[in-house]
Amino acid sequence: MKDNFKLKIEATDGNARTGVLKTWRGDIRTPAFMPVGTAATVKAMKPETVRETGADILLGNTYHLMLRPTAERIHNLGGLHKFMNWERPILTDSGGFQVMSLAQLRKITEEGVAFQSHIDGSKHMLSPERSMEIQRLLGSNIVMAFDECTPYPATKQETADSMRLSMRWARRSFDAFHNGSVHAAKNALFGIVQGGVFEDLRLESIDALRDMGFHGLAVGGLAVGEGQEVMFEVLDYTMPKMPTDVPRYLMGVGKPDDIVGAVERGIDMFDCVLPTRSGRTAQGFTRRGTVNLKNARHTDDPRPLDEECGCDACSKYSRAYLSHLIRSGEILGAMLLTEHNLTYFQDLMQGLRDAIAAGKLSDFVADFHARRALGDIEPL
Amino acid sequence: MKDNFKLKIEATDGNARTGVLKTWRGDIRTPAFMPVGTAATVKAMKPETVRETGADILLGNTYHLMLRPTAERIHNLGGLHKFMNWERPILTDSGGFQVMSLAQLRKITEEGVAFQSHIDGSKHMLSPERSMEIQRLLGSNIVMAFDECTPYPATKQETADSMRLSMRWARRSFDAFHNGSVHAAKNALFGIVQGGVFEDLRLESIDALRDMGFHGLAVGGLAVGEGQEVMFEVLDYTMPKMPTDVPRYLMGVGKPDDIVGAVERGIDMFDCVLPTRSGRTAQGFTRRGTVNLKNARHTDDPRPLDEECGCDACSKYSRAYLSHLIRSGEILGAMLLTEHNLTYFQDLMQGLRDAIAAGKLSDFVADFHARRALGDIEPL
Ligand SMILES: [Zn+2]
Ligand SMILES: [Zn+2]
Repeated sequence: MKDNFKLKIEATDGNARTGVLKTWRGDIRTPAFMPVGTAATVKAMKPETVRETGADILLGNTYHLMLRPTAERIHNLGGLHKFMNWERPILTDSGGFQVMSLAQLRKITEEGVAFQSHIDGSKHMLSPERSMEIQRLLGSNIVMAFDECTPYPATKQETADSMRLSMRWARRSFDAFHNGSVHAAKNALFGIVQGGVFEDLRLESIDALRDMGFHGLAVGGLAVGEGQEVMFEVLDYTMPKMPTDVPRYLMGVGKPDDIVGAVERGIDMFDCVLPTRSGRTAQGFTRRGTVNLKNARHTDDPRPLDEECGCDACSKYSRAYLSHLIRSGEILGAMLLTEHNLTYFQDLMQGLRDAIAAGKLSDFVADFHARRALGDIEPL
Repeated sequence: MKDNFKLKIEATDGNARTGVLKTWRGDIRTPAFMPVGTAATVKAMKPETVRETGADILLGNTYHLMLRPTAERIHNLGGLHKFMNWERPILTDSGGFQVMSLAQLRKITEEGVAFQSHIDGSKHMLSPERSMEIQRLLGSNIVMAFDECTPYPATKQETADSMRLSMRWARRSFDAFHNGSVHAAKNALFGIVQGGVFEDLRLESIDALRDMGFHGLAVGGLAVGEGQEVMFEVLDYTMPKMPTDVPRYLMGVGKPDDIVGAVERGIDMFDCVLPTRSGRTAQGFTRRGTVNLKNARHTDDPRPLDEECGCDACSKYSRAYLSHLIRSGEILGAMLLTEHNLTYFQDLMQGLRDAIAAGKLSDFVADFHARRALGDIEPL
C-alpha cells in the first residue's frame, strides 16, 4: 500500500478491528462514520461544527456536484476542500448510485450511463473515465470506482450481469484513476464489491477486484431494501473473503444497529444521510432509541434530548425548546437536531473503537441493545 | 432612574451620543442594534454566534410568543432567556404592532385588541394589562408599553385619536408594569411616542409620556411606508423634545442609511428584521451597498462577499460558494448570510460609536455614503 494512504490496525476483537487510516489530509479513526455533504455542505451545519462532533472525513456526491455547481467550476475555485472549507479527508462516491436513483431518462450501455439532470433536464454522461475525471477535479482523497447500482430485487442472472459490468467498469476506473498521475500519487481508489444477495456472485466480485491493486474495498448494493437480516448474512459470507490489510467500507449504511452489527463483522467505514436527514425531520437518535420531537409529550419537557450527550442541543436546550423550534419551522431546529444526531453517531463510533481496543466489544453491543430496548425516558 | 438600569452617556457629537446602557443582565453599548428573535430564535443563528457578531441585546416578539409556545409555557420552563439560551438583555415588544399586521379578525376597543391567531385561528385578547403580564412571564428586561399601531397613511384626526388611545394605554401599561413588583424592580419599561407625521401630535405624545416615569422612550409609528425623508423630518422635530437622560429607541428601523441618519439625530437603539430576513433571501449588506447573491456574476467569483468583514462567511468562503448554497437551497446559505448581515450591522454600530466618541461622526457618515455610492466591486 502507498505510504501516504495506509491502514494501521491497532486492535481486533473477533472480526472487528480498530485503527487509523493515515492520509495526507489527516488521520481517520476506524471504524469511521462519514457524514454526507451532498452539495458541498453537510446540510444545516458549519464544517467546524461537523468537525466538533468528531468527524474525521466527509463524503461528497459526484452526481450532485457535477450538475451543480459542476466539477470544473469547483476545480477552478481551488477544489472541493477549499470551496466548502473542509481541509480534512473527503471521500467522493462515483455517481453510479445516484444517477440511477435521481436522474431522468437514463440509458445504460457498456460505455456508461447517459442521463438528464433532475435539476434542469440537461444531458450528461457518466462513465468510469468521466467519474474518475470528476472526482479528480474535485480533489477527492478517496475515489470510488464507477459501478452500476444493481436494482433490488433482481434475479440472479440480472445481478450477475450487473456485477460483471461493474467489474469491467472497475478495471476502466482503475486505469483512468492512474492516468491522473499527480492526483493518483497522493490519493486512494476503492473498488466496490457487488453481487447482490448471492454468495457465489459476491465471491466472484471479490476475486475480480482483489488483485487489481485498489487501496480499499467497499461492499455495495446493500441497504437497498433487503433488510438487516439479509444484509448481515451477506456480510457473514463476504467479509471473511475480503482482504484484511485495506479499509473495508459498507456504503450507505446506516441505522445505529446496522452499524454495530457491521462493525462486529469487520467493516471499517460507513456513510449515511440518516443523521442529517433525520435532523431535518424532527427525529433524534438517543442512547434509548429514536425520539420523534413532533410528539406532544415534549412540549413542556425541560429535560435534554439525551442527558448523556455533550452536544450543544443537549447541553444548552430542553426538549421543550427543540419541540418549539420544530413546530415553528425554525431553521435552528434543523441545525441543533442535525448537530445532535451527528454527535450521537460519532459517539457511537468512539464507543465501538474504545470497546474493540479494550477487547470488550460484546459487552458494548449488549449494553447498546439493552438501553435501546428500554425505550425513551418516561414522560414527566 | 433606577440603579440597575442606567444610561451612561460617554460622548456626544452634534445630536448623536454614545455610551452604555447598564442593566442587570449586562451592558448595552449605544447606539445599539438589536437583532430580532421573533419566535425565541434569531432565525438561522445559534445565540453564541449572534453574540459573536457583537450583539448586546435581542428583541423578542410578544405576539408570536404568546401564541406559540405561549408565555405561560416559557415561564414554567424558566423564562425566555433560559428557554432560548441567551443570558444577556432582552427587549420585548408589546404585541401592538404585530397584532395589527398579522392577526385575523381584529377588534379594537378601549379595553384592548381582540383577535384570532394567524397560526390556528384561536381567540385571544391583548390589552395593556395582558401585554405587561406576558412580558413579565417572559422575563423581559426592557418591556414596551402596549400601544396601537396607527395605520399609515391616516388623517390627522385618525392619528390623533389613535395616539390618544395609546397614551391612555401607556398609563395602564405603566400601572400594570409596576404591579409586577419583583419583575418591575429589576427591569425597565419604555413608553412609545406616537403621533404619525404631525408635529403637534408628536409633541402632545411626548408631553403625555414625559412625566410618567418611563425608563426609556421609543419613537413608534415610523418606517411604515412614509419614506426616509419624512421619517427624518419627524425625528428632526421630535428628538429635541425627547428627554436626554433616558435611552431613545427608534422601533423597527432599519436600513443602514436610516440607522446612520437616526443616530445623527440622537437615537440610541434600533431593531429590524432586515439583516436576518435578507440573509434568507440572498441579500448581503456590504460597505459598498447591497449585493444580490442570486445574480449570475457571483457563480465563479472567488472573492469574499465583503473583504473588510471578519465574519465566517467572508473569511472562509467565496461569493461563488455562497451563490452555490443559495442556488441549491441549502440551509448553510441562510446561516452564513445571516451571520454576515448581522456582523455588518454590528460593525456599523461600532463604527458609529467610535466616530461619536472621537468627535468625527460627520467624517464617518461622509465615508459611509461615499463607499456605498461606489456600488459593488467590479465583476472579474
Ligand atoms: Zn446531543
Ligand atoms: Zn461578512
